Amino acid sequence: MKADFEASLRKLEGLRTQDMFGQDFLLTWDKTDDELKAVWAAADALRALREENISARLFDSGLGISIFRDNSTRTRFSFASACNFLGLNVQDLDEKKSQIAHGETVRETANMVSFMADVIGIRDDMYIGKGHTYQLEVAQAIEQGHKDGILEQRPTIVNLQCDIDHPTQAMADAAHIIHTFGGMEQLRGKKIAMTWAYSPSYGKPLSVPQGVIGLFTRLGMDVVLAHPEGYEVMPDVLNVAKENVQKGGGSFRVTHDMDDAFADAAIVYPKSWAPFAAMEKRTKLYADGDEAGINALEKELLAQNAGHKDWCCTEERMRRTEDGKALYLHCLPADINDVSCAQGEVEASVFDRYRDHLYKEASYKPYIIAAMILLAKAKDPAAALRAMKSRALPRKIY
Amino acid sequence: MKADFEASLRKLEGLRTQDMFGQDFLLTWDKTDDELKAVWAAADALRALREENISARLFDSGLGISIFRDNSTRTRFSFASACNFLGLNVQDLDEKKSQIAHGETVRETANMVSFMADVIGIRDDMYIGKGHTYQLEVAQAIEQGHKDGILEQRPTIVNLQCDIDHPTQAMADAAHIIHTFGGMEQLRGKKIAMTWAYSPSYGKPLSVPQGVIGLFTRLGMDVVLAHPEGYEVMPDVLNVAKENVQKGGGSFRVTHDMDDAFADAAIVYPKSWAPFAAMEKRTKLYADGDEAGINALEKELLAQNAGHKDWCCTEERMRRTEDGKALYLHCLPADINDVSCAQGEVEASVFDRYRDHLYKEASYKPYIIAAMILLAKAKDPAAALRAMKSRALPRKIY
Amino acid sequence: MKADFEASLRKLEGLRTQDMFGQDFLLTWDKTDDELKAVWAAADALRALREENISARLFDSGLGISIFRDNSTRTRFSFASACNFLGLNVQDLDEKKSQIAHGETVRETANMVSFMADVIGIRDDMYIGKGHTYQLEVAQAIEQGHKDGILEQRPTIVNLQCDIDHPTQAMADAAHIIHTFGGMEQLRGKKIAMTWAYSPSYGKPLSVPQGVIGLFTRLGMDVVLAHPEGYEVMPDVLNVAKENVQKGGGSFRVTHDMDDAFADAAIVYPKSWAPFAAMEKRTKLYADGDEAGINALEKELLAQNAGHKDWCCTEERMRRTEDGKALYLHCLPADINDVSCAQGEVEASVFDRYRDHLYKEASYKPYIIAAMILLAKAKDPAAALRAMKSRALPRKIY
Repeated sequence: MKADFEASLRKLEGLRTQDMFGQDFLLTWDKTDDELKAVWAAADALRALREENISARLFDSGLGISIFRDNSTRTRFSFASACNFLGLNVQDLDEKKSQIAHGETVRETANMVSFMADVIGIRDDMYIGKGHTYQLEVAQAIEQGHKDGILEQRPTIVNLQCDIDHPTQAMADAAHIIHTFGGMEQLRGKKIAMTWAYSPSYGKPLSVPQGVIGLFTRLGMDVVLAHPEGYEVMPDVLNVAKENVQKGGGSFRVTHDMDDAFADAAIVYPKSWAPFAAMEKRTKLYADGDEAGINALEKELLAQNAGHKDWCCTEERMRRTEDGKALYLHCLPADINDVSCAQGEVEASVFDRYRDHLYKEASYKPYIIAAMILLAKAKDPAAALRAMKSRALPRKIY
Repeated sequence: MKADFEASLRKLEGLRTQDMFGQDFLLTWDKTDDELKAVWAAADALRALREENISARLFDSGLGISIFRDNSTRTRFSFASACNFLGLNVQDLDEKKSQIAHGETVRETANMVSFMADVIGIRDDMYIGKGHTYQLEVAQAIEQGHKDGILEQRPTIVNLQCDIDHPTQAMADAAHIIHTFGGMEQLRGKKIAMTWAYSPSYGKPLSVPQGVIGLFTRLGMDVVLAHPEGYEVMPDVLNVAKENVQKGGGSFRVTHDMDDAFADAAIVYPKSWAPFAAMEKRTKLYADGDEAGINALEKELLAQNAGHKDWCCTEERMRRTEDGKALYLHCLPADINDVSCAQGEVEASVFDRYRDHLYKEASYKPYIIAAMILLAKAKDPAAALRAMKSRALPRKIY
Repeated sequence: MKADFEASLRKLEGLRTQDMFGQDFLLTWDKTDDELKAVWAAADALRALREENISARLFDSGLGISIFRDNSTRTRFSFASACNFLGLNVQDLDEKKSQIAHGETVRETANMVSFMADVIGIRDDMYIGKGHTYQLEVAQAIEQGHKDGILEQRPTIVNLQCDIDHPTQAMADAAHIIHTFGGMEQLRGKKIAMTWAYSPSYGKPLSVPQGVIGLFTRLGMDVVLAHPEGYEVMPDVLNVAKENVQKGGGSFRVTHDMDDAFADAAIVYPKSWAPFAAMEKRTKLYADGDEAGINALEKELLAQNAGHKDWCCTEERMRRTEDGKALYLHCLPADINDVSCAQGEVEASVFDRYRDHLYKEASYKPYIIAAMILLAKAKDPAAALRAMKSRALPRKIY
C-alpha cells in the first residue's frame, strides 16, 4: 500500500502543530495528541513524496549532529536517512575521538558542536537516571546559547533513545499498527501485550517497554504489561500510563503471567529488559567504579533471568491470542531460539512468519524522525510539504 | 590528455546496457563485453564532465552505504568520491559501532540499513569462501526486501573487493592500459605478466591477480600468470580465464618462472598474494578459533615466502620486457625495496620511474565506481549524461 | 550584533587577495596583512549570509578531507560546518582504518585521497618538528600530483593545528577581539598577556601561544608572553613576533612574572603548554620507542608543572588588568579550578563571567575556516559572495 500524500496532508492541516516549532522531541508524553498525530501524518506525507521520487529537501545545506553513547545500527541509519532526505549532512560526535574526556562540561560541548547545527540526535540509554537528564542538559545549554546570541539558531534535539523513552521506536511501532489495522480508530479497545521475554543477555534498556506503555495507552487500547516479579519498570512511567488511560479511555494493567497477557491479545510485543531497580543499582556501581560489584550484579541478574526461560513467545502462546493471529512486534534485533541463541525471546517459526511485518515496522523509523525534524524546523510544515510536492524536484534526477 | 565527452558518449550509445539497470556489480565475468565497455565509456564521460567543471549529480539526495570489513584508504576514498560526485552521501556501517555482533542475520542488517539506500559498497576480502558469499547474501536479502514491499527501491551493490574478484581495481587497471596504449584494439596480442612477487608480509588477498586474469583475458591479450609452485590461485578463476580465451582470442598460461613471464611482456603486474590453499586453511582455523594453528600457519607461510625473495620486479627483469619498457602496474601500496621494507615486490628505481603512471592508474577508480553506479541507477545512462552536459550546472559554482 | 554584509564586502574588495587563489593556509606569517584582513572580512560576510538564511554554496558537490592525528571536538566540527556551509562533504581519513601503516608514503596517500578533493584539513600537533613538516609534505605531494596531471585540480590545505601554529584558532581569537573592541584600529597599543597557566595535565601543544604571538604582534598591540623559566616556546616563533613588531609597531616582550603580564592588560590569554625543549625530547623518545624514557619525562614534567601552581588566572590577578576588566580569552576546553580539576588555569568565577565571550570567540572558527577555503577556491571571492547574496537561495528552504 503506497502512502497517500493528499490524505496525509489534509490530516496534518487539521492539527495544531505550532508549539512544535523550534522545540525538541524527548518524550511522547510531553506532546499533545495533535502533535503525535502530526508526526504520523507528516511521516506518511514524506514517504509519499519519496515513493513519487520527489525531493524533500527542507535544507540546501546544514548539519545533523549525532551523539551515540551506545551501539546502534538501525537508529543510526534511520537518523542518517532522515537527515539526508531533508538535505542535512550527519556529523557524528564520537566521544572517543573528541576532547570531551578532557573534562569539559555538557554545556560547553553542546554549544561547541552547534554553531551550524540544525538537529542533534542523541542516544543515551545505558544508565538509569542519566540519559534523559543528559538530553535535558543539552537542551538547556543550547537554549541558553541561543538566548545569549552564541548560537544563531537553536538546534532541535531528537531523542534517539534514553533511559526513560524511545520515542522514535514507539512512534514507528504505532505507525505500523495504525497502518496494519486500518487507522487509529480501529485500535480502540484492542488488547496489546507488552511483555517481558527471556534473553541470555541481560541489561537491555527499559526504554522500549516504557515507550510502548507510555504511548499505546493514549490510543484507547487495552494495554497489558507483563513481566515476572522483580522486573518492574520505572514507577514514573507506570503513572504516565495510568494517567493516559484516565484521559483517553482503554485500560492499563500489570500482570506477572505471560499467558494472561497473551490471551485474546490483538498485538504482542515480547521483549527482554532489565529490572529497573537493578539498573539503578548498576548505574551506582559504575559511578563508583566498583567492578567487583558490577560482576556480582551481572551474575545475580543472569541467574534471575535463567529462572524465567519459560517467558518465550512460543507458537503455543500465539494460539491463545485473538484468532491465534495477534500481530507480533519487536524493535529488533530479537533473540530468536536456535538462531541467535539457544533459547530466547521468540520461537523461530513465529519470528519467520512475521519477518516482513517486522521489517516494515522498522521501515517507518526514518520517516518518523524526518517528520519530527520537519515539524520542529518548518514554521508551517503542511505548507512546506505542499511546496515540496508542487516544486516536484526529482530525488533521483535521471 | 583530457577525457573526450562526445567520443565516450557515442561509444556508450552503441552498447547494450539495459540489463545493468537495477543490478549489482559483483564479478566482471558476470558482465557482457558490452557492459564492461559501457563502464569504461561512462567513466570517461564522467571524467570529462568533471574536467569541464560540470556537475554530475544524478541524485538530489540519497545514501551510499559502505561496509568495509578490511582496512582501506584508496577504495574507501574512491567510493566516497564517486558517491559524492553523483550527489550521494556516504554512511559507513561500522560493524564495531553497530549491534551486528548482537546476533542479527545478514538478511536483517541488509534490510535495516537500506530503507533509503541507493548503493551499497562492500569490501570483504579477508576469508576465502566468505566475501563473495556475503555479497550474494546481501544481494538476495535486498532483492527479497524489495519484492516484499519493505524496500521502496532496491539498492545496487558494488563489490569493493571480495575473496574472488576486485572488479573496481581490475576495471581501473584496464581503463589505464586502454588509455595508455591508445584504445582496446591496441591491446590485442600484447603480453601481460600477472606475477607473484615477494613481500615480507603474508596473507595478501588473491582478488587482485584473480581479477586481472579474469578480466584481461577478455581483451585478446596474451596473459601469463606467474608464481612459485604452491602459490596457486582459485581453480574456478583459472577456468574463467581459460574460457575467456576460447571466446575472445589471445592466450592464457601459467608459469613458475618470473623471467619467463617478463620476457617480451608489454605490461607487468608483480604483486604478492597468499596461496589459495593456505588461505582456505586459515579461514577454517579462524572459524575454529584455533589461535595456535593460525600462528603456526603464519610462521609456515612466512618461511615459504622467504624461499622466494628472488621474485622481485628488478631493473634487470624489466630489461627483458618489450623494448625494456613494459608498463609496470600495481594496485598500491607496493612493497618497495629499501623504502617500505628491506626487500619486497619491486626495486625503488623501477617504482619511481612509473610513479606517475601508477597514480594515474589509481585515479580511474572513482570514475569506474561512479560509472558502475550510473549504469545501475539511470534507466538510460547515455541520456542522463547528455542531460548533465546540457544542464551544465557548474560543480564549483564561482 | 549581526554581521554586516555590505561593510564586509567593501572591505574585502579593497584588499589584494589574488595570491591566495589555489594556495594553502599553513601559517599566518606566510600571509600578507591584506590576506589576513580578507579572511576576517570574508568570514563576516559569510556569517551575514547565514544570519539572513542565504545559502553560501560555493560547490554543488565536492569533498573536504579531514586528517586528525589528535583528538578534536571543536576544530573537527568547525571544519565540518565550514565545508557543509560551502557545499562540501567531509570524508575523514582515519589512519587506523586505512592502509597507511602498511608503509606507504605521505606522497602516495596525499595523491590517493585527493582525486576529487577540494580541501584537506589537517591537525597534526603531537610532535615537535613533525606537524608542519607533514603539512608541507602533503602540500608538495599534491602540487606535484597536479603538475603531473594526476590530480585534475589541486586541493587546498587548511592547517587545523600543527606543532608551530594554530591559524584557525588565532584568526578566530583575533576576529573576536576585533569585534569586541570595535575594529582593528582600536587594538593598537592595547596590551595583551599571552601567559602560561598551571594545568594538572602536561604536554599541551605550543601552537596556541605561538599562534597568538605570531599574529597579535601584527595588530600593533603590546604583546607580552609570560611563562615560568623553562617553558620557552620555539625560538623561530619568537623571532617572527619580534620581526612583526619592527614592521608594524606595537611591542613584544617575554616575562617570567604572571603579575607583570596581567598589569594593565586589556586582554589576557592564560593557558597551559609544554616546554618546547621537553617536547622536542619527547618526540625523540617516541621515535626511539623508549617507553621508560617517556614515562620518566612525564614524571619530570608533571613535577616541574607542580612547582608553578600559582600560575592561575585568579580574580585577584584579573583586578590588576585595565580597569580590572581585561577580556579573558581561551581556546577551550580550559582547566577550571574545582570544575574540571582541583587546581588549574583559571578560577571558576572568572571563567563563568566570560563564558558567553568564550563561546562567542569559538563561534568564529567555522566562518574563519570557510573564509580560508573561499579565498583559496574562488577566483574572485568578493564577486562570489556578491553572487551568493543576489542569488539569494535560502539555506533553510521553508
